[in-house]
Amino acid sequence: MYNQPMGGNEMPRFGGPGTFMRLPTAQTAKGLDVGFIGIPMDIGTSWRSGTRFGPKQIRAESNMLRPYNMWTKAAPFEHLQCADLGDVAINTFDLKDSVRRITAYYDEVLQHDVIPMTLGGDHTLSLPVLRAIAKKHGPVALVHVDAHADINEHMFGEDIAHGTPFRRAHEEGLLQDDKVFQIGLRGTGYAADDFDEARRWGFTVVQAEETWHQSLTPLAQQIREKIGDTPCYITYDIDSLDPAYAPGTGTPEICGLTPPQAVELIRGLKGLNIVGTDLVEVSPPYDPSGNTALVAANLIYEMLCILPGVSGKS
Amino acid sequence: MYNQPMGGNEMPRFGGPGTFMRLPTAQTAKGLDVGFIGIPMDIGTSWRSGTRFGPKQIRAESNMLRPYNMWTKAAPFEHLQCADLGDVAINTFDLKDSVRRITAYYDEVLQHDVIPMTLGGDHTLSLPVLRAIAKKHGPVALVHVDAHADINEHMFGEDIAHGTPFRRAHEEGLLQDDKVFQIGLRGTGYAADDFDEARRWGFTVVQAEETWHQSLTPLAQQIREKIGDTPCYITYDIDSLDPAYAPGTGTPEICGLTPPQAVELIRGLKGLNIVGTDLVEVSPPYDPSGNTALVAANLIYEMLCILPGVSGKS
Amino acid sequence: MYNQPMGGNEMPRFGGPGTFMRLPTAQTAKGLDVGFIGIPMDIGTSWRSGTRFGPKQIRAESNMLRPYNMWTKAAPFEHLQCADLGDVAINTFDLKDSVRRITAYYDEVLQHDVIPMTLGGDHTLSLPVLRAIAKKHGPVALVHVDAHADINEHMFGEDIAHGTPFRRAHEEGLLQDDKVFQIGLRGTGYAADDFDEARRWGFTVVQAEETWHQSLTPLAQQIREKIGDTPCYITYDIDSLDPAYAPGTGTPEICGLTPPQAVELIRGLKGLNIVGTDLVEVSPPYDPSGNTALVAANLIYEMLCILPGVSGKS
Amino acid sequence: MYNQPMGGNEMPRFGGPGTFMRLPTAQTAKGLDVGFIGIPMDIGTSWRSGTRFGPKQIRAESNMLRPYNMWTKAAPFEHLQCADLGDVAINTFDLKDSVRRITAYYDEVLQHDVIPMTLGGDHTLSLPVLRAIAKKHGPVALVHVDAHADINEHMFGEDIAHGTPFRRAHEEGLLQDDKVFQIGLRGTGYAADDFDEARRWGFTVVQAEETWHQSLTPLAQQIREKIGDTPCYITYDIDSLDPAYAPGTGTPEICGLTPPQAVELIRGLKGLNIVGTDLVEVSPPYDPSGNTALVAANLIYEMLCILPGVSGKS
Amino acid sequence: MYNQPMGGNEMPRFGGPGTFMRLPTAQTAKGLDVGFIGIPMDIGTSWRSGTRFGPKQIRAESNMLRPYNMWTKAAPFEHLQCADLGDVAINTFDLKDSVRRITAYYDEVLQHDVIPMTLGGDHTLSLPVLRAIAKKHGPVALVHVDAHADINEHMFGEDIAHGTPFRRAHEEGLLQDDKVFQIGLRGTGYAADDFDEARRWGFTVVQAEETWHQSLTPLAQQIREKIGDTPCYITYDIDSLDPAYAPGTGTPEICGLTPPQAVELIRGLKGLNIVGTDLVEVSPPYDPSGNTALVAANLIYEMLCILPGVSGKS
Amino acid sequence: MYNQPMGGNEMPRFGGPGTFMRLPTAQTAKGLDVGFIGIPMDIGTSWRSGTRFGPKQIRAESNMLRPYNMWTKAAPFEHLQCADLGDVAINTFDLKDSVRRITAYYDEVLQHDVIPMTLGGDHTLSLPVLRAIAKKHGPVALVHVDAHADINEHMFGEDIAHGTPFRRAHEEGLLQDDKVFQIGLRGTGYAADDFDEARRWGFTVVQAEETWHQSLTPLAQQIREKIGDTPCYITYDIDSLDPAYAPGTGTPEICGLTPPQAVELIRGLKGLNIVGTDLVEVSPPYDPSGNTALVAANLIYEMLCILPGVSGKS
Repeated sequence: MYNQPMGGNEMPRFGGPGTFMRLPTAQTAKGLDVGFIGIPMDIGTSWRSGTRFGPKQIRAESNMLRPYNMWTKAAPFEHLQCADLGDVAINTFDLKDSVRRITAYYDEVLQHDVIPMTLGGDHTLSLPVLRAIAKKHGPVALVHVDAHADINEHMFGEDIAHGTPFRRAHEEGLLQDDKVFQIGLRGTGYAADDFDEARRWGFTVVQAEETWHQSLTPLAQQIREKIGDTPCYITYDIDSLDPAYAPGTGTPEICGLTPPQAVELIRGLKGLNIVGTDLVEVSPPYDPSGNTALVAANLIYEMLCILPGVSGKS
Repeated sequence: MYNQPMGGNEMPRFGGPGTFMRLPTAQTAKGLDVGFIGIPMDIGTSWRSGTRFGPKQIRAESNMLRPYNMWTKAAPFEHLQCADLGDVAINTFDLKDSVRRITAYYDEVLQHDVIPMTLGGDHTLSLPVLRAIAKKHGPVALVHVDAHADINEHMFGEDIAHGTPFRRAHEEGLLQDDKVFQIGLRGTGYAADDFDEARRWGFTVVQAEETWHQSLTPLAQQIREKIGDTPCYITYDIDSLDPAYAPGTGTPEICGLTPPQAVELIRGLKGLNIVGTDLVEVSPPYDPSGNTALVAANLIYEMLCILPGVSGKS
Repeated sequence: MYNQPMGGNEMPRFGGPGTFMRLPTAQTAKGLDVGFIGIPMDIGTSWRSGTRFGPKQIRAESNMLRPYNMWTKAAPFEHLQCADLGDVAINTFDLKDSVRRITAYYDEVLQHDVIPMTLGGDHTLSLPVLRAIAKKHGPVALVHVDAHADINEHMFGEDIAHGTPFRRAHEEGLLQDDKVFQIGLRGTGYAADDFDEARRWGFTVVQAEETWHQSLTPLAQQIREKIGDTPCYITYDIDSLDPAYAPGTGTPEICGLTPPQAVELIRGLKGLNIVGTDLVEVSPPYDPSGNTALVAANLIYEMLCILPGVSGKS
Repeated sequence: MYNQPMGGNEMPRFGGPGTFMRLPTAQTAKGLDVGFIGIPMDIGTSWRSGTRFGPKQIRAESNMLRPYNMWTKAAPFEHLQCADLGDVAINTFDLKDSVRRITAYYDEVLQHDVIPMTLGGDHTLSLPVLRAIAKKHGPVALVHVDAHADINEHMFGEDIAHGTPFRRAHEEGLLQDDKVFQIGLRGTGYAADDFDEARRWGFTVVQAEETWHQSLTPLAQQIREKIGDTPCYITYDIDSLDPAYAPGTGTPEICGLTPPQAVELIRGLKGLNIVGTDLVEVSPPYDPSGNTALVAANLIYEMLCILPGVSGKS
Repeated sequence: MYNQPMGGNEMPRFGGPGTFMRLPTAQTAKGLDVGFIGIPMDIGTSWRSGTRFGPKQIRAESNMLRPYNMWTKAAPFEHLQCADLGDVAINTFDLKDSVRRITAYYDEVLQHDVIPMTLGGDHTLSLPVLRAIAKKHGPVALVHVDAHADINEHMFGEDIAHGTPFRRAHEEGLLQDDKVFQIGLRGTGYAADDFDEARRWGFTVVQAEETWHQSLTPLAQQIREKIGDTPCYITYDIDSLDPAYAPGTGTPEICGLTPPQAVELIRGLKGLNIVGTDLVEVSPPYDPSGNTALVAANLIYEMLCILPGVSGKS
Repeated sequence: MYNQPMGGNEMPRFGGPGTFMRLPTAQTAKGLDVGFIGIPMDIGTSWRSGTRFGPKQIRAESNMLRPYNMWTKAAPFEHLQCADLGDVAINTFDLKDSVRRITAYYDEVLQHDVIPMTLGGDHTLSLPVLRAIAKKHGPVALVHVDAHADINEHMFGEDIAHGTPFRRAHEEGLLQDDKVFQIGLRGTGYAADDFDEARRWGFTVVQAEETWHQSLTPLAQQIREKIGDTPCYITYDIDSLDPAYAPGTGTPEICGLTPPQAVELIRGLKGLNIVGTDLVEVSPPYDPSGNTALVAANLIYEMLCILPGVSGKS
């Protein structure tokens, strides 16, 4: 009844379409519960580029995923109509125009009752997506997993870049500030109190050091309780993970999350009223093994498994 | 009127579908002049494996190709209806069954008046494709560009492997032996006269040494004259090229063709009655830059440009 | 008195023979306590291939290993006669024939009182090895460390492939089902209860989630107590580890064991009556650094250190 | 008397400063004959990115270059005062602003009597550099070596991108159109007559096919005669070379120049009144061996050897 | 007032000088509190080479570091005058001469009141550096983080190699033996009691097994208490980390420290009277992603943050 | 009767021993016509290291070679007793001692009537080998194919390094200077007349520029006539080839030989009284594809095919 991923007993996994999990494509979001959307861009990056090929490689590595979650028993394709909507035609020569194009695209998609799950692309994209999301859902709660706060005032004098989206989102009222969680922040900064300004806005900042050597299930529980039924957006920067697990990214920072922590965090959010997700900053040129994209594909799958309507434990 | 490759001004080249040249897909060959077909297999290989990912990577690199040939002025998409037919569901655990599946697939495709252009995959596949081709067209002329003759009696006692297809094709009467050209053979062998047996069958063998330091346009001219109007199949093993140009292959041999020679050879065959082509032995794990697949995609495009009905000079 | 690995003060480690730990070779298992055997195959794999080069690369990376275990104080070369027996001549063009050849080879080896330690190669090989093992020792206890259960009914309709060996072994009575431990299973599956069928057979399944953030010494203790003196076979799939530690494998799954966990598990099994081991699924083309093979070589060494007759703590 | 590259007998080549040829740095162009300038940008690219790291890697590979040209006997450091001026601070988040910044930087540099030798960076940069060059020298002759004509009307609707600079330069009157040579063009295009429009402007277009299998010394001779004493700018896109020699680039095209041809072309231009050069499109993420940057560093060195005032044969 | 790292809003991070953190260079240590010094050598290595390029790559990856430590709030550039002193001109053809040259260089540097922070280079270099350090400060306490004890009597009959420096330092009285801590040792050895001899000298040896699954903050506390105010040298071999985090090294050993542990250890040493540090054994040819050097750059930065005079918590 | 390479129908090529062409090993040269000897060293290199792993990788890639030369019809294993003698135990911590060890090893080998074919290792090794060769055969003719003349007076003040062997050999009277041919020299130098001093000694220097775009068969003919029956040594530096074909080397120079030229040169020397050969400077860390070692293995095979006593055309 629902679209199913193409199975390995039907077509070898190294064959078949290059869509997310080898799902069917769809031209519009009409009738979909979930739409996978690529935003192939890297012109918002400040150090290494290459994330323009992120959506392609995430889809390629997703071809090994099977439909059932063996731990949570979630069976997303028994409850949701999913399809791959393809890519947003960004303007790679103009970041500001790309930002406009992204919002326009999501405005269109969100005319339907669909949860967009975005494959990035650099983190700049979260701002234009959130603009469309907030138009539909109002200010949202935010779970933001990342090595960086991405709340710079400017980067090289610019308002829009991959280090600024959440300051802009805060300023524009796209967020319910007291329901914003930034998890995994670490490394070096331009000022010792870079993270504290966000705390003053109401954001909850959990630095990576607070997560070392432990399960993130308790943290997820706290977040879930705090956010409750508020429409919630999850933005997952792959650089939140330690570069050993996700070398293919543009601004790697050592001492990040482990994959079990990353998965615990997502699973623990089951029950939230999720209205959209993104997974960003996968940079294939720095990931010859494809394992970064494999992690990304799995995290997207885990987010799919906690969407409203999907069965299974957390 | 005809399907067109998706253009870079419509969607950035790093976005869009993962089909050959970002063409539309088709479920059957009905109405097509040309169908691009992947055969993702490597279980016929004797040294390095990995060609099972060949079709995927050739398609990926083909995304940079534009529709017009700047030298020959060929405009294939103004004259031919082309689409990507997807992959053959080979049985990766059984080579003999895969061979049967491939022939069955091509039998079905060839019920339509279409030229199949195959993306390999290891060279074993040429045998089952030729079986289907010969059923429709009778014994064919063959242009076989390769580092190896692929006419072993057996490999490890087996009839079917990537080193035996053209002996089998000869034995089965699939070829017009006096119109078979093997070009680029070289390296070391199990007996000093390995190539001579094929010569005795009537094959014309052009060793790589005969091609060094020169244009292959004259050779192409000779082939074209000899083959004339006979239905002709082109099988292009990427290891015919020197490994500097095509490192991503399973049994590389030094001293091979250069890309200009490879292209001259194809362009010089314009006018032949081509009924099918394959491009085989692209092994992505040994080609991190993707340049082997880029060469492959270009050679497939050049073969497309010389199909019957396409305008342009040779 | 016993064969010793060639030392770094005799020949630089980057020189000398390419055998496991630079040990001497042996033509037969006669007189050996331990024989290292390569099975260079990948035709049973379902996603990435390349494990045919596994034995070669494991041997290459083992050249850095020195004879003494610095933690357990085990000194295997003071108690066991070890040699490298070379490789099994599998038929790379026919999986079923390869399976037959492997059993025949091990039947021959096991005419001697030797413990075979196998370097793989894809996981299909465990079935034919277990067939020979069970002929000699009767049904065995099994410690199976892996990301996958490998108990599919079929793969693409086939009985024999790298995802089916332990269902076949169960069906053929090669195992003492209540003394089978599957550790590290995780990821996605074709049905939510894939692992439960094995549990019904009597297998103990420890999913990766149960191992996160903790030592595996207690688990090893439980296994040791349960298995007792029963002849025991250890099969170690390198994909049991997280891909950060072992990227060079064919079907990587995120969230796996860490190397300390992998080593704790082995060390904790000291005292078991081990009759054979294998280490499988090392795929060098996906492991340019060689670190996957380095992990593999170390795990094989650690298994050597717990064989009956070797001194040292657990 | 003149700055000398740091020698390998003074400091091992793998040590020392990361400047071009380990030359001293300079803060301004005052007193210099030649200034090496990096423009680290990739936001004008349409397929693969990564050229933002080009200047760094070209400098790194240049560390192996010694001061004397062993064939032409040129001794540039006996006749010219050279230094590394560092990088232009482009705005990586805004292509149009970057273009303005580049022109401003070169306007400043060109207040001194210096020849700027630019290390790119994507090809967009040639336009803003030429704007500054033409302000000082008037419309210039141009030797443009490239796989692509870079004369698109627009790319994705934009005037400024790496595929448009020479149409813009033509339109703005920065060039002496009858003294413009485009060499090495090839591949596929958006229209069969893409190159012909430039021919109509007066450009001389030499397609790659015209260069296959032959020395480029005669071509260089023709160019030199045609250009005569006109101030001349050389723009060298590394993708003019075949990707076997220069895999690390963003839009590789097969069948390009060989390094001997690339060098012959430069040496044959000795005697021209060169007022500036650039070497663009080196993309290190696609060049793990560094050989693309090595080719680039050598070509820059060869261009240095033909500057006015340097002795040596052509 | 103090030298500041060049900021990303002044020059994109992929531009600018190739110095450590894009700090200014200095010709002498005069007036500096901290001097970063490269020792580009690999001729003391016994397995893989390549560390001669270590200093270059550490500097390259350090370009992403910002001035403030976001966890400890340390602000080293507000309290210390730092500069990059460049590289020691070792003699790559003679290890013994290189050792002499290194001591001579540090003797010169240490005429000034500066803390040398060394970027290696193979571990042999710690001996000649310690010789200079001990001349100035007398025998020092030592925190030695490594996979190996580096206390071989000889290697291949030689006194000087990367596996012998701390036996030599012990013999020469450069160390306060009861204040020497060796942390992270593991793997295989030439004798089961290799580590015990050092224990008999008074060294404290903490094998890796003692650190698994736990924070190293308590260990750091013990070390700090034991060393007290004694002048202390920190030598950090990157192979102390697990190869998943630091693949680019010459003699990788599995089961090493995680980056959080590595950082905890350093931060916990705040308050020691540190007189010098080194970070060694980064081998770029085995680290195509650059992540090993990124870890190294961060650890050097963390050591900078605990130097006497820098504010911030531990 | 003679040792034969292990065949691919006996053992898959990815299995079997790691010797050159999978030949048997021998403990001494007694009874051999040809002995393959590895010299795993890189401590004489001045830029990139890594050649210590050269012999291992050349042997690995040689596993694909079959016994017969398909062009010349040479059948070396029908006429010569060949074996792999393993590696010389060089002292990797002392270049001068290594040089002594090499000569001692070859003195021993040359007590037998054997032709040593050496697998390097850096070019320093040619000097100690030539010392042993000249002791037995007197001063020899030399065919030296290389990008560099390797006749530096000193490197960093040292007599012995990979850039000095042929000056030393000249000074020590190991060569018949008028029968020395240096082919392929190119690039940049420390003085414009670097090559001319060797010409004054009597060496014939053929710069790479003289070989571009043409067959080397005529050059080989001239060399053969000039050398006649004089005992002749061939030293082949893999960097004589263009880095596109042989990226895995320590001091690559652009614009080198193509593989056909390299093979033509060797084949054209058939008839010379060859008394030893070496193939040097293969650096595997810079050759992830293995193609450099593949070229090297083929060139060694081609040299084997022209040894005295082997049939076949040139």
